[in-house]
Amino acid sequence: MINVVLIGNGNVGFHLTQALLSTKNAKLVQVYNRSLPKISYLKEIVSITNQIEKLKRADVYIISVSDNAIETISNQLNVEGLVVHTSGATPITSLKQKSRGVFYPLQTFSRSKSVCFSEIPICIEASSKKNEDLLEILAKSLSKKVFKINSEQRKSLHVSAVYVCNFVNHLYYMGQQLCEKHQVPFEVLQPLINETSQKIKTLSPFEAQTGPAMRNDTNTVQKHLQMLNENQKEIYTLLTKSIYETYKNGKKL
Amino acid sequence: MINVVLIGNGNVGFHLTQALLSTKNAKLVQVYNRSLPKISYLKEIVSITNQIEKLKRADVYIISVSDNAIETISNQLNVEGLVVHTSGATPITSLKQKSRGVFYPLQTFSRSKSVCFSEIPICIEASSKKNEDLLEILAKSLSKKVFKINSEQRKSLHVSAVYVCNFVNHLYYMGQQLCEKHQVPFEVLQPLINETSQKIKTLSPFEAQTGPAMRNDTNTVQKHLQMLNENQKEIYTLLTKSIYETYKNGKKL
Repeated sequence: MINVVLIGNGNVGFHLTQALLSTKNAKLVQVYNRSLPKISYLKEIVSITNQIEKLKRADVYIISVSDNAIETISNQLNVEGLVVHTSGATPITSLKQKSRGVFYPLQTFSRSKSVCFSEIPICIEASSKKNEDLLEILAKSLSKKVFKINSEQRKSLHVSAVYVCNFVNHLYYMGQQLCEKHQVPFEVLQPLINETSQKIKTLSPFEAQTGPAMRNDTNTVQKHLQMLNENQKEIYTLLTKSIYETYKNGKKL
Repeated sequence: MINVVLIGNGNVGFHLTQALLSTKNAKLVQVYNRSLPKISYLKEIVSITNQIEKLKRADVYIISVSDNAIETISNQLNVEGLVVHTSGATPITSLKQKSRGVFYPLQTFSRSKSVCFSEIPICIEASSKKNEDLLEILAKSLSKKVFKINSEQRKSLHVSAVYVCNFVNHLYYMGQQLCEKHQVPFEVLQPLINETSQKIKTLSPFEAQTGPAMRNDTNTVQKHLQMLNENQKEIYTLLTKSIYETYKNGKKL
């Protein structure tokens, strides 16, 4: 049984709390948060605190706070267990402890949307083989998908995630705004959205591309541009150019 | 039983052929294509031709050719049935026939990727109630999801589809390129891609947004920009700005 103290309770920390409370192979012994009221929902289930110097003994301390607070928290910790953070964008060296690691669940977390933790890839890295083994056991108790990823690789995963998640969601938002403006139900687009996300399991994104930009169908592009406001137009133009450039030599139709 | 002649066999026509051959409520009586060898794979199953003046009698003629050829084909047709096209970006008035309509399957079609046609929204429009009823029966024989959408609405759906499908797929491509460059398996991102596409079934895209741009986390943004080439950087910067602008007044964290 691995004893865990969780530090922080933002979107990641919130869902990690649920996952740690559900698994039988790890025990959540304490949750720390700067603001106690924000974690008072947990007080019947687990020990809570807002005093960083009063953390319980544990095997693993998971720091799940905003990126720019990780180093500060690490400096305040005087503990014996393995200290890890959950950030995609922060190197392992931001932690001052000798026993340190990274425990990065690669998913988009919103408080109001439950997630199936067992399907979430957890990217781990640790300062020693022993610590890596410990983290691996912990990760596997929460998820079926555990990857050993070093800080350099994780950095690139994090920026990729911005493209395939944050930016993608913003394009959904733009599509939804256009539908709303023209009184078309956005749900009409959901099967297309699904298929687009599933298609790349069997085709590479390069092969999966369709649409006017790839075909260099300037007629359709011009018609579309007439329907857009300045911001929409700017994004449309840049992405159309980028797709066109990707396929102009040896595009497949 | 509705008799159908299909004109054209590109990506949409190809998948429509399969769907029409599979349904019991419609009969595909002929497939026309400019190039006969391209549809020779059908010759044992259905009548094929490359002579537009020799089309068989049918209830519905579906023109599924590139947008800029629709008008030409329509002008060449001398038939009695209902003539429809499958284009999202072309108004119904591009067809010269009195009995005319639109039969727009809203999906991304690649020849090498099979699709479940019954899940594809079909947007229909017709020149009369009688023709609309006929198209609706035909559409419902192929799909569970049939929507009556006028030309104006369809235009906006088409441009939305470019955002949520073509542009989204290009962002997947950029994510995949980054992974490849740093030797990280792209599959690590698939659960994130899935969740991002599914999340908007229960949250609006506005609510579903996460990431550094929305949080105005300029530290992370700067770190990311250092990892990108010029084209990647340009897209990253523009989308980050657009997300930031969307949330700067009244963002939820």
